[in-house]
Amino acid sequence: MTAEPIYDIAHLAHVELLTDKPEESLDFFVNILGLSESGRAGDSVYLRAFDDYEFHTLKLTAAKTTGVGHVGYRAASEPALMRRVRAIEAMGAGLGWDNGDLGHGRAFRFRDPDGHVFEIYFETNRYVAPPSERPALKNQAQRNHGRGCAVRRLDHLNLLAQDVSLIRDFMPKALGSRVTEQIVLDSGALAGCWFTVNNKSYDIAYTRDNTSTKGRFHHLTYAVDQREQVLQAADICLENGVYIETGPHKHAIQQTFFLYVYEPAGNRVEIANAGARLILAPDWETVTWTEAERKKGQAWGLKTIESFHTHGTPPVRS
Amino acid sequence: MTAEPIYDIAHLAHVELLTDKPEESLDFFVNILGLSESGRAGDSVYLRAFDDYEFHTLKLTAAKTTGVGHVGYRAASEPALMRRVRAIEAMGAGLGWDNGDLGHGRAFRFRDPDGHVFEIYFETNRYVAPPSERPALKNQAQRNHGRGCAVRRLDHLNLLAQDVSLIRDFMPKALGSRVTEQIVLDSGALAGCWFTVNNKSYDIAYTRDNTSTKGRFHHLTYAVDQREQVLQAADICLENGVYIETGPHKHAIQQTFFLYVYEPAGNRVEIANAGARLILAPDWETVTWTEAERKKGQAWGLKTIESFHTHGTPPVRS
Amino acid sequence: MTAEPIYDIAHLAHVELLTDKPEESLDFFVNILGLSESGRAGDSVYLRAFDDYEFHTLKLTAAKTTGVGHVGYRAASEPALMRRVRAIEAMGAGLGWDNGDLGHGRAFRFRDPDGHVFEIYFETNRYVAPPSERPALKNQAQRNHGRGCAVRRLDHLNLLAQDVSLIRDFMPKALGSRVTEQIVLDSGALAGCWFTVNNKSYDIAYTRDNTSTKGRFHHLTYAVDQREQVLQAADICLENGVYIETGPHKHAIQQTFFLYVYEPAGNRVEIANAGARLILAPDWETVTWTEAERKKGQAWGLKTIESFHTHGTPPVRS
Amino acid sequence: MTAEPIYDIAHLAHVELLTDKPEESLDFFVNILGLSESGRAGDSVYLRAFDDYEFHTLKLTAAKTTGVGHVGYRAASEPALMRRVRAIEAMGAGLGWDNGDLGHGRAFRFRDPDGHVFEIYFETNRYVAPPSERPALKNQAQRNHGRGCAVRRLDHLNLLAQDVSLIRDFMPKALGSRVTEQIVLDSGALAGCWFTVNNKSYDIAYTRDNTSTKGRFHHLTYAVDQREQVLQAADICLENGVYIETGPHKHAIQQTFFLYVYEPAGNRVEIANAGARLILAPDWETVTWTEAERKKGQAWGLKTIESFHTHGTPPVRS
Repeated sequence: MTAEPIYDIAHLAHVELLTDKPEESLDFFVNILGLSESGRAGDSVYLRAFDDYEFHTLKLTAAKTTGVGHVGYRAASEPALMRRVRAIEAMGAGLGWDNGDLGHGRAFRFRDPDGHVFEIYFETNRYVAPPSERPALKNQAQRNHGRGCAVRRLDHLNLLAQDVSLIRDFMPKALGSRVTEQIVLDSGALAGCWFTVNNKSYDIAYTRDNTSTKGRFHHLTYAVDQREQVLQAADICLENGVYIETGPHKHAIQQTFFLYVYEPAGNRVEIANAGARLILAPDWETVTWTEAERKKGQAWGLKTIESFHTHGTPPVRS
Repeated sequence: MTAEPIYDIAHLAHVELLTDKPEESLDFFVNILGLSESGRAGDSVYLRAFDDYEFHTLKLTAAKTTGVGHVGYRAASEPALMRRVRAIEAMGAGLGWDNGDLGHGRAFRFRDPDGHVFEIYFETNRYVAPPSERPALKNQAQRNHGRGCAVRRLDHLNLLAQDVSLIRDFMPKALGSRVTEQIVLDSGALAGCWFTVNNKSYDIAYTRDNTSTKGRFHHLTYAVDQREQVLQAADICLENGVYIETGPHKHAIQQTFFLYVYEPAGNRVEIANAGARLILAPDWETVTWTEAERKKGQAWGLKTIESFHTHGTPPVRS
Repeated sequence: MTAEPIYDIAHLAHVELLTDKPEESLDFFVNILGLSESGRAGDSVYLRAFDDYEFHTLKLTAAKTTGVGHVGYRAASEPALMRRVRAIEAMGAGLGWDNGDLGHGRAFRFRDPDGHVFEIYFETNRYVAPPSERPALKNQAQRNHGRGCAVRRLDHLNLLAQDVSLIRDFMPKALGSRVTEQIVLDSGALAGCWFTVNNKSYDIAYTRDNTSTKGRFHHLTYAVDQREQVLQAADICLENGVYIETGPHKHAIQQTFFLYVYEPAGNRVEIANAGARLILAPDWETVTWTEAERKKGQAWGLKTIESFHTHGTPPVRS
Repeated sequence: MTAEPIYDIAHLAHVELLTDKPEESLDFFVNILGLSESGRAGDSVYLRAFDDYEFHTLKLTAAKTTGVGHVGYRAASEPALMRRVRAIEAMGAGLGWDNGDLGHGRAFRFRDPDGHVFEIYFETNRYVAPPSERPALKNQAQRNHGRGCAVRRLDHLNLLAQDVSLIRDFMPKALGSRVTEQIVLDSGALAGCWFTVNNKSYDIAYTRDNTSTKGRFHHLTYAVDQREQVLQAADICLENGVYIETGPHKHAIQQTFFLYVYEPAGNRVEIANAGARLILAPDWETVTWTEAERKKGQAWGLKTIESFHTHGTPPVRS
């Protein structure tokens, strides 16, 4: 008997990121990463990459702390949205509906087992380029200004969790996500887990929080078209005094070519390229990495930098 | 009321290509394009790229002519397969079941309105790498030998059709495909149409056959990870005397970075890179290119070479 | 008996370009090509790429016409400069000394047989980056702002001449240049000739002017570090409405990966990458291309666009 | 008064490398690095990259140990060679003439202050491609087979020395080399020094040997055309079980994009790309890096791996 895959959720849609240095963070996302501003409301600035088709993929919110505000996924249709709402309510994780945002219509909110807030919605505010932002090629959302790292689109995010195995159970039921890769330690504990709702190799990853804190954020990733642009991004960060944590290098897990930097408020941001790799198999078998395999470091032998295992936002007061 | 997208078909799975120069063609696909042989049966050699997860993505069959034998798509599940079979039978396009092939289980065959033969199936023969072919990174189907163009995976194909508008009606109903881009001439005729069943920007394209022949083939495409590899592929073809028709250059339509060559029997083969571009919107609105826009040539102004509009396989006897 | 190579001239140093649309041209060179302004004097703006070590490599001069003002080469030393002055005076080509410019000390001027004006000098005004322009890595002349095509350095220029064979005789005697490649037509006429004074594969090229005009300009080239950046440059030009004449593609001659565009006043500008290719052999044997070989087009088969043979600046009044 | 630069030596020509695993080493250089065999004599195999114009750039010699046999530079002319011979003899460093080798005519041998053996010569055995090795483009020495890392040409080597300051004095006098960059420790000691005889940013580097041994070898480098090829080289090494020591990453010093691996006998080999960077200034001012600057690690912050400071060949018996 074949289980049928669930395709109710179309894609990761946006991330709300908190910053206690709102001006510096905004400057980073616009001038270094290369996002464009779509609008402002309250303490938030709405940002998007040049080929993101929705109003925003990043909601940057001034706050007293850092980390993630909430994560938004867009459903495949209104009926698909309602199927997910029923499933999530049945799991007891629902927080109820809100009235939407500048970027989209009403959204149903829920919490993952680690306390991070998510929302799902279908009605969206599709970006329409004003004349000055019209791209030369009409199949692209917006003109590419080539500013900073000139990222193309939101790719994925990574959250920290006390117990990743709870997330591994939760996400497939809540969003219909598939687990494409995972790290299982010798103890049997799950150190990391990569999920996707579509053909991307992952749209969200969870890794174990080594502190006793919940709801923390590891990083947010925008995709560039070519590995060479990740190298150029490193030069741009170098010239502009952005803190480079590690990379460019290739992850063994998911084979992503990565560069990790910290935006001015301390939130980790990745610029990445996945090449032509996609998850096309409807019955993809989860790839499990052992503790021994992880000790080999990244794909080409780079030892994983210590802060990659310890730095999350908001920072933990010790 | 929101129409729900159909996700019954997971992905383009394989293409059977006919060749009247089987040895030369095989040498091209293995040593220039960089595919690996999975097996042989009858007049056919089964080939795959290093990260194709199924037994084969190319079935190269010795024949008295050239062009396409059939095209295979894999369903998302057994129930999804049966839903598609019922839909196609209701359309009167079905040809019935066959018993499968080296690469997959039983398959349901049908014809598109131009007479090309398709098959859909779910049960597959997943590639298992023997020890000598095991990749260094376990999330990859096979070792990458870096041979020739070292393509990663099957990407798409392009067929010719007398009346592309018939295909535009047919594919969404038969396979649940979405039309991502199209060319509509001033006369209202459809000159080309690009379809996808998943998040790739397209897996099959149809362009108008300017002869009075049916069932012809335009090209088959394998993806490489980076644009630089398309440039390298051009050098490899140059050094090995492979006929380069056009490129490397960037298509305006779909923004694919392309290189078109002819394999020794005359079938057109493309090596391409799409960057980080994906169709994530579940309600993507078809991009329509006008005749005037098409006259601008490719993205950076290259005039489309005449043979691109006339050369198909098999050749038309005049 | 071994002839000794001459190393009196160190490198191509700068080009004075005339424009009858000075504001638009300046905007192109700064915002599209990515040069920085070093200073202004009279009708001229002095510009340089981020890793050019001298004050300027482009002197952009407002004029009633377009084309080249003069071409500057820097000598290897003061005695070397004087040896070249004596040689040029002995050839009867000298125009005498001038007092220098913002960018360098006194310079000796001469004319090539087609009437283009050159100058050679040793004393230079080395660029010193102010604090805001200091690069992150001290072995680079200036901070790389990543603006526009972000070219690294001046590479070469191409002039038109009535009789290229006169130039082939002249340059080795005047500057100690070597002829690295040339095109000899079936008639025996020289259609093009590439010269270098150092290890670059060429710093100046001459091609035959098919009009009866003298002293015209074909193009000026800045180098980027990677071929991928030439592709990105094409996208930048596309998005900004810059006229792309041809490319990106690879020249057969010299194997340069090229993109040719017109700056707003009509002067042709090339963005190029030569890979790791250098002329290291002190006794390099000139590579001669025949008319038949040239008819094959560029390296990967692109037919040379007609305007490449006809468009020069200033335009010829017919 | 201007000192005149010396251009008697044209370029680094070849390196003799010793291996105690001759078959495995040869397999590495041919199938992984992508060199071609030019010939054999005695215990040596002569190898070259596809665009090296001489008979060989690597002489791989079976021996009881590893490290460097000798280093060859080619003079600019016969008179230039004799000028260097006289200078070196005057310095008391000469070892006398030998009768040449498969790859070149008579050569004058000398020792650097650390005991490494060098030779200089002018008469060379220029590589002539047999029909099967003729390149598609006649301005290239040999057909590029795209095998392994497919390096273009020999780039530079790095030797270890007890006292780098002795080398800094020696090389300019012996070969006319210029010091382009150097590391001066707080103690005043020279930790590393980069030299060039032409427009490359360096052709030989010396770094301090932290053992009490003389004459040791640090690494040998071949250049590829693009940074992307350095990344691909890392994948090739990964798939083939070649030990990757560090990289790909960008050096702060010289800005070289590097990958360091060990060939099977333990000699370190680098695959590198320098972008469009050249030393064009005839009066280049040495860039001096301080101990504090070196502690920042490589260009993008990678900490230099410990073995890079300790591993040389032959290994030191402790």
